[in-house]
Amino acid sequence: MLRGIEHTITFLPSNRKVVVAAGTNLIKAAREAGLHINASCGGAGVCGKCRVIVEQGDVGGGRSEKLSPDDYALGYRQACIAVVTADLTVRIPQESGISGGALATAVPERHRARMHVFEVDRLKQEGIFEPPVEKLCLELTPPSAVDNRADVGRMIQGLADQYDLHRLVTGFPVLRKIRRVMRENNFLITVTVGRPVNEKFRTQIVNVQSGCWASRNFGLAIDIGTTTVYGQLLDVNSGKVLTEEGDYNAQISYGEDVISRIMYAERPEGLARMSDLVTGTINGVIKRLLDRTVPPYGLTTERITIDEINSVTIAANTTMTHLFLGLEPENIRRSPYVPVSTFFPPIRASDLGLNLPPHALALVYPAVSSYVGGDIVAGVMGSGMYRTELLTLYIDIGTNAEIVIGNRDWLVCAACSAGPAFEGGGITHGMRAATGAIEDFSLNPETYEPMNITIGHKPPIGICGSGLLIIVASLFENCLINQAGRFNPIKSPRLRQGRSGVEYVLAWAEDAGVDHDIVINEVDIENFIRAKAAIFAGAKTLIEEVGLQISDLEQVILAGAFGSYIDLDCAMTVGLLPEFDTGKVIYVGNGSLMGARMSGLSNHIRKDVVKVVRKMTSFELSEVASFKDQYVASMFLPHTDMTLFPRVAKKLISCTR
Amino acid sequence: MLRGIEHTITFLPSNRKVVVAAGTNLIKAAREAGLHINASCGGAGVCGKCRVIVEQGDVGGGRSEKLSPDDYALGYRQACIAVVTADLTVRIPQESGISGGALATAVPERHRARMHVFEVDRLKQEGIFEPPVEKLCLELTPPSAVDNRADVGRMIQGLADQYDLHRLVTGFPVLRKIRRVMRENNFLITVTVGRPVNEKFRTQIVNVQSGCWASRNFGLAIDIGTTTVYGQLLDVNSGKVLTEEGDYNAQISYGEDVISRIMYAERPEGLARMSDLVTGTINGVIKRLLDRTVPPYGLTTERITIDEINSVTIAANTTMTHLFLGLEPENIRRSPYVPVSTFFPPIRASDLGLNLPPHALALVYPAVSSYVGGDIVAGVMGSGMYRTELLTLYIDIGTNAEIVIGNRDWLVCAACSAGPAFEGGGITHGMRAATGAIEDFSLNPETYEPMNITIGHKPPIGICGSGLLIIVASLFENCLINQAGRFNPIKSPRLRQGRSGVEYVLAWAEDAGVDHDIVINEVDIENFIRAKAAIFAGAKTLIEEVGLQISDLEQVILAGAFGSYIDLDCAMTVGLLPEFDTGKVIYVGNGSLMGARMSGLSNHIRKDVVKVVRKMTSFELSEVASFKDQYVASMFLPHTDMTLFPRVAKKLISCTR
Repeated sequence: MLRGIEHTITFLPSNRKVVVAAGTNLIKAAREAGLHINASCGGAGVCGKCRVIVEQGDVGGGRSEKLSPDDYALGYRQACIAVVTADLTVRIPQESGISGGALATAVPERHRARMHVFEVDRLKQEGIFEPPVEKLCLELTPPSAVDNRADVGRMIQGLADQYDLHRLVTGFPVLRKIRRVMRENNFLITVTVGRPVNEKFRTQIVNVQSGCWASRNFGLAIDIGTTTVYGQLLDVNSGKVLTEEGDYNAQISYGEDVISRIMYAERPEGLARMSDLVTGTINGVIKRLLDRTVPPYGLTTERITIDEINSVTIAANTTMTHLFLGLEPENIRRSPYVPVSTFFPPIRASDLGLNLPPHALALVYPAVSSYVGGDIVAGVMGSGMYRTELLTLYIDIGTNAEIVIGNRDWLVCAACSAGPAFEGGGITHGMRAATGAIEDFSLNPETYEPMNITIGHKPPIGICGSGLLIIVASLFENCLINQAGRFNPIKSPRLRQGRSGVEYVLAWAEDAGVDHDIVINEVDIENFIRAKAAIFAGAKTLIEEVGLQISDLEQVILAGAFGSYIDLDCAMTVGLLPEFDTGKVIYVGNGSLMGARMSGLSNHIRKDVVKVVRKMTSFELSEVASFKDQYVASMFLPHTDMTLFPRVAKKLISCTR
Repeated sequence: MLRGIEHTITFLPSNRKVVVAAGTNLIKAAREAGLHINASCGGAGVCGKCRVIVEQGDVGGGRSEKLSPDDYALGYRQACIAVVTADLTVRIPQESGISGGALATAVPERHRARMHVFEVDRLKQEGIFEPPVEKLCLELTPPSAVDNRADVGRMIQGLADQYDLHRLVTGFPVLRKIRRVMRENNFLITVTVGRPVNEKFRTQIVNVQSGCWASRNFGLAIDIGTTTVYGQLLDVNSGKVLTEEGDYNAQISYGEDVISRIMYAERPEGLARMSDLVTGTINGVIKRLLDRTVPPYGLTTERITIDEINSVTIAANTTMTHLFLGLEPENIRRSPYVPVSTFFPPIRASDLGLNLPPHALALVYPAVSSYVGGDIVAGVMGSGMYRTELLTLYIDIGTNAEIVIGNRDWLVCAACSAGPAFEGGGITHGMRAATGAIEDFSLNPETYEPMNITIGHKPPIGICGSGLLIIVASLFENCLINQAGRFNPIKSPRLRQGRSGVEYVLAWAEDAGVDHDIVINEVDIENFIRAKAAIFAGAKTLIEEVGLQISDLEQVILAGAFGSYIDLDCAMTVGLLPEFDTGKVIYVGNGSLMGARMSGLSNHIRKDVVKVVRKMTSFELSEVASFKDQYVASMFLPHTDMTLFPRVAKKLISCTR
């Protein structure tokens, strides 16, 4: 990714500095610096509480009717609508921020997982960059009376002579075009060959083109998520991602989770409908990926056409894989949770309804079980976990959280029913990560005033997963709630008795984008605790099943959209993640898509995938006796066993004082 | 084939006996006995010349208005409409037959090639009966909490445990049905596996069925001829042919020979049209093959359904193969005669437009060259030529005659442009072998009166290939024509000057089924000589190219519809076949269909086919310098070099006397 223009902001009186991209608003900049500014309305300029004084430099905007001309002249700006355009010095007045005395306890520097970068060059260095599909130019001698062998035989001889390729089998679509192709450019052709994963098997001749086009070798990587489908168009020769696109999985209108999709698929024609819907989404993504190919890519100035796509590698969870392939998913949701298959043969992409040429093969990631799917396997591959020496915990958090623990020698895995809390489900004002969702938050430790930051800087309408995590952690760290997730008896205008126990008002109706107050209550917090407990208990159970301890972990890998937004300190404070050196936490983003891409670039990896899947021992947590105890023990903030969380234990002293 | 009821007919005065099937007419019986009865009208009872006296036993019919009640009472019958229903003694009166003196020179016993019988039992004895598709019953343990592996994994483990099968790959259609199939009969299933030709490659799981159906394993063998498509439905477990059907290739309305089909295929959409037409014909044949399956076959009393067909093996000449597969045939008809391919991968039958289930594979016979196609290769396999020690000449006569010479160690082959004479083309009154065609003939050596036998016993309307051969041989043996094929100056009401030289009247218009006389003239005879010369010269050139002589041949195999009707003595008399012990001539019938069937029953043979094709050295006769000389030398009856035909030379003495 290109790095844009950046500016340094110095906040007074704390004198904290932060470097942010031009265009960031001041409230986000303060949050990045670990500073609190009161802000109820999520950054929409409505509540007018986030006044700051710009002492040096100038900002864009920063003024609504909430700010008087006099104050504006004095340098006051509304932080939430003031945009960074230069280096700045900004003072947070006491009424907006926190008092001098509290500065020492202001949240420390934020910790997010460092991003794992997919390194094509490293694959090349290690000699495992070996695309499954290769394009070879062949100059052949035209037929004559003394050499009138068949066109296909001529090509095969050419591949043997010029590329030392043997044991070839010619795909049927090639037969239908080769005569014309050979003669269009005086027997100069480009042959697309598909290498088998097992070198003992035969190399497939999948396509032929007239002329020399070896430089144009393209493939697709697709991640089919329950919610979103992502695709990448790959230059298979270089390994580069040319374009990337995403779209909502069109199945979503039939249910948000896999269970409701499976139930729909069980109706007459339901499976075909589910399959058609996601195929349609993928076709849309493919079209946009190609539409966005403009020159120059590779060596020519031509757009990339659909006929130039030779392969598509696909990763998805087990249910999405079944629905996409049209495999009956019924037993995935019924004990003992049996999928139709965990391995999938290479399938002609056009047989799956994909708008791809007849020679394009779809390579679908294998799964481990009904609830540890190809997306997780792809993540284990894409993140490099399968070949690290470090004892690693891999977590992909969604409705189900999938956990993998191990290293290059062994791998154990399980799915945890975390429930939908991290996606906003089961939370009174929970919502998906969409415009208006509170995604970031801080709490004034003196006044308990909130700093709500919403997606799109619109007045808040709800709380998404990352916001929920930070809110609960902030309430807990600031002693508003206890280890059981119950509110302490503290007096504040923002605390009140609601229908579901005590609740904290994040935003008053007048500051919100909805006509009611936005709150978080004790039932919400309990649901959150259930979710985090399921994940932590799952990880602890798994690692103890192999005779190790949580403390033996050497690395944590976070995957999934949620992973990128996780505030690591918050995650450890609430006991979602084990307490850990934050530098050893890696975020891989869409691990599924990354794994799909790697398979599209390396036959070594495709071969290793099979070994990795066979190595991954899947646990059905509900069948492991100790899991229930672990789960109950985890139903505390951060945990009943505080020796596991010494850093949190130290912080909690301030509440009991 | 079942042998029907037969009767013995004793002909007087020659006292020759012949055994014929009940229902045979007396004129055919006489012909089988080598006796001549004058008969112009082809056996339609019109000319009334074929009167015989039934002295013992009784016949059915034998009376038209040409026979008076008095003669009928005396035992006279018209031989051509008198049907054998019992043992008989029949006298041929001199006016119908030939005089006593000529009896000694009456044609000797007829020689036809003995039929080669396809022996499944021998394949089994030799251990090469190994069907490419096998059905296996599996009883599996249902899933449980402690064993919830995927359905496909369960099946694969079952195949490993119960049948020691490994290296399996599951076909995509299997994935789509296995869940339901497994549970329909409490995890008792039947697995259809496709064995690879090369045992190093992977075994395909092509189908699964609920319950145990191992006894029902069916396949198809198809021969796509330029004129006719034949199919057989095979019980793959036993090797038996269950039903057999044929139909005209629907392409025939676009031209009778391969060149006109290729020309049509070169038009826009022409190739697709050609492909659709023959596919339609095959689908019709398949439907009729299945419609004719009535109980009991195998162990059940159910009809065979299309879903039970697992494979179809197809043999055809190179052009028919191209048009069927939709491969551009343009260069087959243009020097240097390059086909698109001579080897064809296994193709999903449904991709070819065949109405077969998605798992059924089409296995298409490889070809040697543009004019030595998969039909010939199939014939070499089906006839056993590829594994005989005997030096063998294999001839398949059609518009093109294909020749293969060799044995299990080496094989050379070529196509000879025989022209269409053997299919009635280029002959004044030539026609295909259809109703009314003169297919058999003899000549009264004294009166030169003909004995015409037509297909369907209708008044003659023309001459088909087998008739032409016998007519020319008879004219030559009876000194009516000389070695150059010109008529000798003999006086006969049947000989006259026509537009194309002298002509012999086979049937007067009043005895014919058309409104003109049916004749054979010197131009017809010349065309016939060209055709037979091309074949003989081709064979002689080929064998001499490998340093051997025609006299080294140890066996002749005739294939094709024409081959079954060839009178071997006539064929040697005219020099179509080398002079040879007739006992060493074998007729294989539709060698192409037989080969297709063998491949459908034996993976050994499928493997051998590839080796055989690589072994078959193809000669382009027009490129072999000596061929032209051989051809010119063969443009004589039987040949310019009479030392090659000592038996004919001896006969010819009677003409010069």
